[in-house]
Amino acid sequence: MLTDPDTFGTDAAPAEAGQVPSVFLKAGQDRRISAGHPWAYSNEVSIDRAAGIEAGTLVTLRRVDGKPLGVGFFNPHTLIAVRLLSREPHAHIDKAFLANRLQRALALRERFYTEPYYRLVHAEADGLPGLIVDRFGSVLVVQTNAAGMERLQPLLLDAIDSLLAPTAIVLRGDSQARALEGLPAETTVARGNLSDAVEVIEDGLVFYADVCAGQKTGWYFDQRPNRAFVAPLAQGERMLDVFCHTGGFAIRAAAAGAREVIGVDSSDSALMLAKRAATAAGLDRRCSFAREDAFAALTRFAADGTRFRLVVADPPPFARSRKDVPSALKGYRKLARLAAAVVEPGGFLFIASCSHAVEASAFAREVALGIGRTGRTGRLIRESGAGPDHPQHLHLPETAYLKTLLLQVD
Amino acid sequence: MLTDPDTFGTDAAPAEAGQVPSVFLKAGQDRRISAGHPWAYSNEVSIDRAAGIEAGTLVTLRRVDGKPLGVGFFNPHTLIAVRLLSREPHAHIDKAFLANRLQRALALRERFYTEPYYRLVHAEADGLPGLIVDRFGSVLVVQTNAAGMERLQPLLLDAIDSLLAPTAIVLRGDSQARALEGLPAETTVARGNLSDAVEVIEDGLVFYADVCAGQKTGWYFDQRPNRAFVAPLAQGERMLDVFCHTGGFAIRAAAAGAREVIGVDSSDSALMLAKRAATAAGLDRRCSFAREDAFAALTRFAADGTRFRLVVADPPPFARSRKDVPSALKGYRKLARLAAAVVEPGGFLFIASCSHAVEASAFAREVALGIGRTGRTGRLIRESGAGPDHPQHLHLPETAYLKTLLLQVD
Repeated sequence: MLTDPDTFGTDAAPAEAGQVPSVFLKAGQDRRISAGHPWAYSNEVSIDRAAGIEAGTLVTLRRVDGKPLGVGFFNPHTLIAVRLLSREPHAHIDKAFLANRLQRALALRERFYTEPYYRLVHAEADGLPGLIVDRFGSVLVVQTNAAGMERLQPLLLDAIDSLLAPTAIVLRGDSQARALEGLPAETTVARGNLSDAVEVIEDGLVFYADVCAGQKTGWYFDQRPNRAFVAPLAQGERMLDVFCHTGGFAIRAAAAGAREVIGVDSSDSALMLAKRAATAAGLDRRCSFAREDAFAALTRFAADGTRFRLVVADPPPFARSRKDVPSALKGYRKLARLAAAVVEPGGFLFIASCSHAVEASAFAREVALGIGRTGRTGRLIRESGAGPDHPQHLHLPETAYLKTLLLQVD
Repeated sequence: MLTDPDTFGTDAAPAEAGQVPSVFLKAGQDRRISAGHPWAYSNEVSIDRAAGIEAGTLVTLRRVDGKPLGVGFFNPHTLIAVRLLSREPHAHIDKAFLANRLQRALALRERFYTEPYYRLVHAEADGLPGLIVDRFGSVLVVQTNAAGMERLQPLLLDAIDSLLAPTAIVLRGDSQARALEGLPAETTVARGNLSDAVEVIEDGLVFYADVCAGQKTGWYFDQRPNRAFVAPLAQGERMLDVFCHTGGFAIRAAAAGAREVIGVDSSDSALMLAKRAATAAGLDRRCSFAREDAFAALTRFAADGTRFRLVVADPPPFARSRKDVPSALKGYRKLARLAAAVVEPGGFLFIASCSHAVEASAFAREVALGIGRTGRTGRLIRESGAGPDHPQHLHLPETAYLKTLLLQVD
């Protein structure tokens, strides 16, 4: 089956100085990748022919007949065996390559955001598999979630330095993905120093993010356009934000004119940052933040008759994996039922799911059923996902984890 | 199986003066409706017990045991046998009822739109099954797409008069749904006079709609937020709008600073209105509109090397029914391939499907495959639907017909 090795490369790896080793697909396994998909799964590659290639090694991915499909990195221990960086078979993955990808990602964000606070790199969608970079002005938070990207980290940090000259770079090591890739869990400050929470500026308001220890990278950039859309709906009225985290929705609602805002979360450290942002904005008299379980708070308000023009319920993922989906769906139905019950007639409910494994249609169905349980009618006003700083790879629609619904309840 | 008729009503219809006749569900068919779904299908109702009830009659929908589920209208000839107007079993469907629903719909639009140009009523989602009302300032365009709503039309027009005092009301009769419901196809002006196209004001720009004979009701309000999002992407550059209709995307792009805008459509009358809007805005030197098949135009530009920073492809539905879906999917793939081919590197493609029967995930997959065929990579920036003046009924997610994708092409 092998064609002329001079045309398509050879079985031996590396064949020439400067070349990278090859990983071969099994017969007939190239179609999806040729159509644009960026991954080869472990059952699709010939493990025998990849013997001795370590996790994180740059490789040329080849068809069974040797035809190269691109350059990527290999991990023999994970379900995703190869993640493609480039479809150019001779691509040299160096600092210039990484700087070019970073520049492209930056240019895209600068089209949509006037302030330098956004997700700068969203992994495969930006041609940088396994890499997340969040930008907080001159502070960057980096997550490398693949062994291959971890190996490239020195080059990557140099490329980031050249492009943005950040005052600090934090390497967050606590993602689930790193554990799967066999990478250590430590978080370090690779450049500069950080002694306090970092500022996030959003439409002129200042928030605070604990970039070293807060949830995700300390701030949910993904919800920014949704915060902008939803915040004005509580103007002159009362607003409730359960799972309020560091106060993004709550304080934006107050800034947009909500008369009274109540934020509830289970994390004291997140609530402290929310209070700090409310105070900084001069909105602390209209905002109260308290540690309480979201379901308990909703039940309490339902019982005491407190109603809100706007309720925001943006919980952490209810399903961490596929097996959790049935219980997650029940959780979303219950959350929708309890949250809708405290919306005043004609008011609004914004509810979100960031569970990767829960499909948008299933989430919407459970929310509809939950609202139905209250005996009230309503309508879906807007269905949305993450902002444009979280692009999706065209062939990985399943990575669109954020699903949000804005509903009116009669 | 019947319970006490005094509790739950009787088999005879109508039982009392002022009451409406009853339509009974078959045993076990009430669960979906009790959970909030607004329709009973023809195979779910007892047709024997509904003998003699004419199409369009207001009825009480009841469980097999007589328990009332709400008031709606009946059509013995259509797949949807009953469309619920209210879950209140004693709801009196009069001018006040309709005015109340219209008022609620108006209040919702006024929250999101500062100018009176929007879809005012979006059928089931606004509690007015089978009714579409588009508002062009003081001109209203009404579509009644169910026999029951047609019967209510005199009351409805009175309610509209009381609420909005329009200068003209157009009754559009050319929808596919009216034919299914056995309603005549004529379009009439029920109030006032219209001698010319009607103005549409969108973010300060004036467009023109042929409300009596143009596609749909003459203007695509549904794409308004998408036009606002997409238009600035061509700033200083060249933009192509295939299936440009009356120029919504094209002229907004020119107004947002595009250097050169080309609009292509197969309808001379739509193109005339586009030219008129470009002239009115003083943008005619930067806009050209020409009659040409969209696929032919894309092929021509691909061949002559003309490239665009932004291509908009918002075609009429490729699938009018479920049986058209396979060919529609091929059409979307081809359109994405041809359109992506004329996007300059780093430019944007906005592509839409308004085919009810095509699912969002299938549409996105075909678009990804089409772009893949060009050998280029890219990313999905934003997935969106219709604006907030097109709410969805919570239990009719399939009515979310508009699916749009904004992509960047490398």
